[in-house]
Amino acid sequence: MPFVYFYLLQIDHFGFLEDGTFKQRYLVADKHWKPPGGPILFYTGNEGDITWFCNNTGFMWEIAEEFGAMLVFAEHRYYGESLPFGQESYSDSKHLNYLTSEQALADFAVLIQNLKSTLPGAQHSPVISVGGSYGGMLSAWFRMKYPHVVVGALASSAPIWQFPGMVPCGEFYKIVTQDFARSGHNCDANVRKSWNAINNVSSSASGLQWLSEEFSLCTPLKSPVDVIVFKGWLQETWVNLAMVDYPYEANFLQPLPPWPIQVVCKYLGFDSTVTDHQLLHGVSQAAKVYYNYTGSASCLNTSQTATGSLGLLGWFYQACTEMVMPMCTDGVQDMFEPEQWNFQAFSDECHAMFGVRPRADWAGTVYGGKDIASHSNIIFSNGGLDPWSAGGVTHNLTGPLVSIMIPDGAHHLDLRYSNDRDPPSVREARSLEVKYFKQWIKEAKKTP
Amino acid sequence: MPFVYFYLLQIDHFGFLEDGTFKQRYLVADKHWKPPGGPILFYTGNEGDITWFCNNTGFMWEIAEEFGAMLVFAEHRYYGESLPFGQESYSDSKHLNYLTSEQALADFAVLIQNLKSTLPGAQHSPVISVGGSYGGMLSAWFRMKYPHVVVGALASSAPIWQFPGMVPCGEFYKIVTQDFARSGHNCDANVRKSWNAINNVSSSASGLQWLSEEFSLCTPLKSPVDVIVFKGWLQETWVNLAMVDYPYEANFLQPLPPWPIQVVCKYLGFDSTVTDHQLLHGVSQAAKVYYNYTGSASCLNTSQTATGSLGLLGWFYQACTEMVMPMCTDGVQDMFEPEQWNFQAFSDECHAMFGVRPRADWAGTVYGGKDIASHSNIIFSNGGLDPWSAGGVTHNLTGPLVSIMIPDGAHHLDLRYSNDRDPPSVREARSLEVKYFKQWIKEAKKTP
Repeated sequence: MPFVYFYLLQIDHFGFLEDGTFKQRYLVADKHWKPPGGPILFYTGNEGDITWFCNNTGFMWEIAEEFGAMLVFAEHRYYGESLPFGQESYSDSKHLNYLTSEQALADFAVLIQNLKSTLPGAQHSPVISVGGSYGGMLSAWFRMKYPHVVVGALASSAPIWQFPGMVPCGEFYKIVTQDFARSGHNCDANVRKSWNAINNVSSSASGLQWLSEEFSLCTPLKSPVDVIVFKGWLQETWVNLAMVDYPYEANFLQPLPPWPIQVVCKYLGFDSTVTDHQLLHGVSQAAKVYYNYTGSASCLNTSQTATGSLGLLGWFYQACTEMVMPMCTDGVQDMFEPEQWNFQAFSDECHAMFGVRPRADWAGTVYGGKDIASHSNIIFSNGGLDPWSAGGVTHNLTGPLVSIMIPDGAHHLDLRYSNDRDPPSVREARSLEVKYFKQWIKEAKKTP
Repeated sequence: MPFVYFYLLQIDHFGFLEDGTFKQRYLVADKHWKPPGGPILFYTGNEGDITWFCNNTGFMWEIAEEFGAMLVFAEHRYYGESLPFGQESYSDSKHLNYLTSEQALADFAVLIQNLKSTLPGAQHSPVISVGGSYGGMLSAWFRMKYPHVVVGALASSAPIWQFPGMVPCGEFYKIVTQDFARSGHNCDANVRKSWNAINNVSSSASGLQWLSEEFSLCTPLKSPVDVIVFKGWLQETWVNLAMVDYPYEANFLQPLPPWPIQVVCKYLGFDSTVTDHQLLHGVSQAAKVYYNYTGSASCLNTSQTATGSLGLLGWFYQACTEMVMPMCTDGVQDMFEPEQWNFQAFSDECHAMFGVRPRADWAGTVYGGKDIASHSNIIFSNGGLDPWSAGGVTHNLTGPLVSIMIPDGAHHLDLRYSNDRDPPSVREARSLEVKYFKQWIKEAKKTP
């Protein structure tokens, strides 16, 4: 078990008017650390409670001994217990103003420099940043912006190219669809059909009641708006399943069986003669695989799709400012209702919700978009099953940048604890990652 | 003559609450530009009016044709005509809050990306940043933080290490002293003596009057505080002379003769038997070389030491926030009254003046301090006569980082128009710089 610490950080690193500080939480496990100079593996926390990421990043725990490494897991500001303004942190756009990736990276840099200057034996410890998903983006960006702080970075399932103009907006949902297509006969086709079936059934009051009962909804559907929310919730369910389509029983977003999409698809194998009600019965059984694998849910809640350890509101704010990630569907190459990417509508929603407007081009300007060739010592690993690989760095780059594909992997599978049912591709990925870590540490030790 | 343009930029790149924009001024000279793909030489403006820097950066003008290059000179926010809040920009710490180097670099990045996406033929133009002094620091940092925007940087006389803990605080004034020592017999010794002479003479009312008349001061000295200001003004005069000790007549900080310190030292060659009044007469003659070479000054003003094109107040604010540059004197290795570096006193002054406190470690954290080896394509050029070389990168670094010393050069001599009286070392420096520019451009054209 790691020790829990807090460190005082500037609320605003980029301006001097706001001179307040806040306590950032970070976890340290130094059981295997070999000072002086033993490396530090530093998890760049993402949008949620750091203890949850800590528990879901077994890779770091498993290699600590081999590296004689200290593990540090730093919580991202505005999530978990690292709230710059306590309970007021989310109260308005004024308090939310310091929730940006740039501030988070500066937090990590200041924290590491403090650790190195105060921990006996850490002064010359090479630091490698590790992160998954948005945390993986931070890990890569950290190496790009603070190469004097980290000697290298592992960016697992990090969609650093899921920004306007960098990748086609439809790729993400295409991959979700492919996962369903390969997991059971007619599975994607039946999901594609289900939206019309929902539209048909929900057009009458009795249909709404039937749907609500069939899906064991905690709050029955009453209006067309409820149906839109319901469809959005189902869509997100299929996306989440694609993210966590792991080969073994796991509990990341939800407790799930091995290869959960295969289990889901068992309920979605109808041929073309199925009725709307039959189809939707199958869909409800499928959804319950995701929401009630343990059998403990008394009803399904359409306002939540994943663990409460994620800070959804904070992530919405980040998506509404810097993290503008265009997504779209066409219903042909994917199994969803067609919906174009509409930046203006998105911007208006953001303004209504937070009083701020997203800046579509900023992430590309500040982090370089596809122009990252001048950087070094970053591993981009991606899973072939993971929809986020659509915005990831999945082709090989120049020398000191590495892309590793894990064809049978879902969302940052490589960062998880190893498992007997791990596919060979993720075992290989992890051993490559270890190889690069060793190389970076060796290089760093050579530099005076 | 360049064309003058303005471009709308976010006042705050790092937060979304302040969504206002301001007009940044930039100058463009495209007479020799060869589109498509001709390079862009981009001057990263520093603390002053951009037209003044533009006129004092002849190097760019002289190489434009050879490179088929477009010249762009971008004004730094809060200086010249690029005022985020117009006349209110300096009114208080709230309006000054967006005056930081990070915001300025983001301005440059956004401007360049806009130029490249809107100017026909510029899309694939490699951009090289060029700057001197603080502008040179920005130029280097720009390449470090935005390597996807600029393929290389020339950082001339850029004291990127003049921050706490990086170089000894006394080096700066030691170099000033060496310049005087080498420019005339006893010259540094007599300046060293002059402080006591001033203290002695100024201890009586008649002495104050004599001093005021001797130095033709616009405002006569009345009090001990006036004498402190007077000594500070003289000290800054000697520093400025060291910065602009050029081999030919020039007008950068002031209109001056060739090798101005040699001219100054003609009045400071006394042997040890000189009286206080004789010595100070010499000092006044020396000061008038700096303040009245043209003969047009009717009196000397102790509240100003250089051209009004520099934005002193803005620079004070920057020094009081990020740009914390420790300086000290001991009166032994330098020719000044001993004064230790006192961060707390400095911080208190800053707080009294602007309501903000400097952050001593921030510049090192964000820009890497002495740990810059992972960057590439930056030339650090320094003049041996220039006191700012004390905080500069003056020794050779790893492969793609280059340090060029110009032993006979003062402050960014290499950036000035060439002159028949240029020492060979600056000619060599400029041709090396051209060589590296060509190499970076060639490399950039090879990259897809």
